[in-house]
Amino acid sequence: MSKRDFLSTADLTRHELDDLLDLAARVKGKRPGQVMAGKTLGLLFFQPSLRTRVSFEVAMVQLGGHVINLSADDLYELEPQDQAVMNGPAEEHVKDAARTLSRYVDALGIRAASRTGTWERDRQELLLRSYAKYSSVPVINLETCFAHPCQALADMLTLRENLVSLKGRKLTLLWCNHPEPKSLGPTHSVLHLAALMGMNVTLAHPLGFEVDQQVLDESRRMAGDAGGSLQVVNDMRAAADGAEVVYARSWGCTKYWDDAEREAMVKRSLQDWKVDEALMATTKDALLMHPLPVRRNVAASDAVLDGKRSLIYEQAANRAHVQKALLMQLLK
Amino acid sequence: MSKRDFLSTADLTRHELDDLLDLAARVKGKRPGQVMAGKTLGLLFFQPSLRTRVSFEVAMVQLGGHVINLSADDLYELEPQDQAVMNGPAEEHVKDAARTLSRYVDALGIRAASRTGTWERDRQELLLRSYAKYSSVPVINLETCFAHPCQALADMLTLRENLVSLKGRKLTLLWCNHPEPKSLGPTHSVLHLAALMGMNVTLAHPLGFEVDQQVLDESRRMAGDAGGSLQVVNDMRAAADGAEVVYARSWGCTKYWDDAEREAMVKRSLQDWKVDEALMATTKDALLMHPLPVRRNVAASDAVLDGKRSLIYEQAANRAHVQKALLMQLLK
Amino acid sequence: MSKRDFLSTADLTRHELDDLLDLAARVKGKRPGQVMAGKTLGLLFFQPSLRTRVSFEVAMVQLGGHVINLSADDLYELEPQDQAVMNGPAEEHVKDAARTLSRYVDALGIRAASRTGTWERDRQELLLRSYAKYSSVPVINLETCFAHPCQALADMLTLRENLVSLKGRKLTLLWCNHPEPKSLGPTHSVLHLAALMGMNVTLAHPLGFEVDQQVLDESRRMAGDAGGSLQVVNDMRAAADGAEVVYARSWGCTKYWDDAEREAMVKRSLQDWKVDEALMATTKDALLMHPLPVRRNVAASDAVLDGKRSLIYEQAANRAHVQKALLMQLLK
Repeated sequence: MSKRDFLSTADLTRHELDDLLDLAARVKGKRPGQVMAGKTLGLLFFQPSLRTRVSFEVAMVQLGGHVINLSADDLYELEPQDQAVMNGPAEEHVKDAARTLSRYVDALGIRAASRTGTWERDRQELLLRSYAKYSSVPVINLETCFAHPCQALADMLTLRENLVSLKGRKLTLLWCNHPEPKSLGPTHSVLHLAALMGMNVTLAHPLGFEVDQQVLDESRRMAGDAGGSLQVVNDMRAAADGAEVVYARSWGCTKYWDDAEREAMVKRSLQDWKVDEALMATTKDALLMHPLPVRRNVAASDAVLDGKRSLIYEQAANRAHVQKALLMQLLK
Repeated sequence: MSKRDFLSTADLTRHELDDLLDLAARVKGKRPGQVMAGKTLGLLFFQPSLRTRVSFEVAMVQLGGHVINLSADDLYELEPQDQAVMNGPAEEHVKDAARTLSRYVDALGIRAASRTGTWERDRQELLLRSYAKYSSVPVINLETCFAHPCQALADMLTLRENLVSLKGRKLTLLWCNHPEPKSLGPTHSVLHLAALMGMNVTLAHPLGFEVDQQVLDESRRMAGDAGGSLQVVNDMRAAADGAEVVYARSWGCTKYWDDAEREAMVKRSLQDWKVDEALMATTKDALLMHPLPVRRNVAASDAVLDGKRSLIYEQAANRAHVQKALLMQLLK
Repeated sequence: MSKRDFLSTADLTRHELDDLLDLAARVKGKRPGQVMAGKTLGLLFFQPSLRTRVSFEVAMVQLGGHVINLSADDLYELEPQDQAVMNGPAEEHVKDAARTLSRYVDALGIRAASRTGTWERDRQELLLRSYAKYSSVPVINLETCFAHPCQALADMLTLRENLVSLKGRKLTLLWCNHPEPKSLGPTHSVLHLAALMGMNVTLAHPLGFEVDQQVLDESRRMAGDAGGSLQVVNDMRAAADGAEVVYARSWGCTKYWDDAEREAMVKRSLQDWKVDEALMATTKDALLMHPLPVRRNVAASDAVLDGKRSLIYEQAANRAHVQKALLMQLLK
């Protein structure tokens, strides 16, 4: 039985991405009717969710389908390792949960973004990959520590709506401060897709907040293939200069992945990594993006988040539209 | 963009209330079909709920619409204060949650009834009012410490069904004991609407359990305007005398709002504030109402709750019907 | 008002069981359309659930109906005892919850399987029976410590599909080890129905893990009436010999019901009570069943669970089909 998953932005071709975004634009313009009638999407959340949860349910319902939500509280702990001797706390193996759910639902979305150890471990997305391996229906990544492909799809649709042509446009992906350690999911997925679109991407972060080397290499290659570029800088002023899009988001330090206190200590000296009107004034009248939730007046000021160039709610609204397109492609 | 919220019973005119109850009576008699087809109601519960949760979902589903439920466990903490520097525990501002949800759903219900500090703070309904301010779709109050307008609507429908004409009928709103400090929501909203209907309302409670002065003043004025009256007594025997309706409910002490132990100490001497057959025998064969949940044999005895004059399940059932009418008016 | 509940397998006649399984087989072959349109099923889970939760929602939705899920986190504590003076932690009586929900939904499913004291107490299924007593709509048992009738229905459908005729076939119901104390629900219900089908049942467990005497007596009588038999052995090798079906499942020790540590101590010497290829080789090429969740490589080895003779996912899938049939019979 062949099936298609949507786990990562790394494998998408430019052609596939364009197809998805074209379809999303069409379903945004006009609801396509009850194309999901009789179909059920199961959503498993191992962390809290607002946008992902609601936008997927709305997407499915507006297409005539049904969503079953399961959160960590409804479930026991699940074992992702093959051949495990299950005498610990995990009550069920992912293998059995995935195979069982595959008999009930037509697709499965999984949010599995908790920190479980080192970056070397968490970058492997064990729980998500185990679901994908054992499920016989399509599996959708609803965010891991490593990737958040649905967010990046919505972001690309938003950029297309506002810039028309993306090739050669300067997008600055800017680290900003945050009191908590955050996932690298949105950062990695946006990096991939902005590169795939041939944008000139500047990745800006303080020393110590490097993104995953593999994602960086992939993105650099994708940008080159598409006639764009990717540079990394450690100075936010330099990064803002000439930017047409500032995409702000905090992410965690992979080196101190299992040491939140140490990361917090490092970040104490990084409080000027914040997007405000002074910074935006040095850009080329840039659009502001952020995947939300955002720490107001820490990561970015009220003035820029609520300003005329802010696209934050367009990004959120577009989640529903790209996900409709995704569901239509995966379940057709 | 103009939109209508349903946050309070204080602003309702008699005409609006009659319209709502007339519509509720009609939809109770005959299901109006799929008038909510394609519409989604989002419900956010920051406290547990049985009746509100199920009655809203049933109401919406029976009208052909869809409900998305979010409970506190699915969500991170939200910041209600404008201009806050968000370096504390709150992961997202209500502004962003409300504006995002407004892009996905057609109306939002919010239960935000937790005690967060003093009465002076909680009577402001900060979280609810912040949602209403920033949401671009109608917001419905699903209970705060200060108001529970949907409950009072159901109660008025129940009274109309049982008394036909409400004007001049004697309703006693009676404080009763309870091991926990309770919200003033149902009390305030019933006070408003019974006054608006021109009933002769007796509010009876022990010293120290005064309701909010503003609500009392508003209700007294509304009762006067409608040809009814409002008196406050601190003696339950006097209050029961001649009552045609006894509406029982416990509520908290606003003076010791942040001191549950002190309230509990005061209540130890108030254990006779309980509705039983002896008390009901002194009324004018009164109907018994209570908004549920009720502490049986503490607030009211099994005999009266299960007796022939008890309307408690009619009140609960009418929640679904008044809420259908409310949704039809807010979303038309 | 007469209503039908589905609480136990003890009262089912062979004729009723055949009818249910025949209907399940028909709806499995061909979806019967929107026979539940306009109907709502309420599900209350006081413990986590994967299969039961999802299979009931899928069943109802595929029949055109709606499900409202409530989990323990959404609810306050409920009082099951009649005449209780409710000054403890329970915020509402089951009587009021059941009567209220009966006004909103068309049927109620209850999972109430937590250990609350001694076996003598928990075998009475107080919470479930209280819901059934006070609800005016059909109540379905979604598992207690004592019974799990929906699981056993799915198991019988699975057996019928694989063995055609069940009478006289040898089924071994085999206790297996598990790090946690488990309910006796699936064991009791499978025992009842395998006996009702006239199978030759061998119940195999270590000394100290006796099932409930009443269930054993009932099952022995049912087996005799149906031309089958029931024997109890304390040796797993003897039990496997000649078995055509091995039904594995762990269950708790009723004697130490309120002493998990003592049960754990006893089980330390029972680690060979595990189903593996060596054991299966001594059977008559037996089918392997287990109701899931299963502790892999503790209760049963990967090799047998993933082997050709394993029916574990068929059992799970059949939950949805038998439950469709059940809902159609209860709500017709």
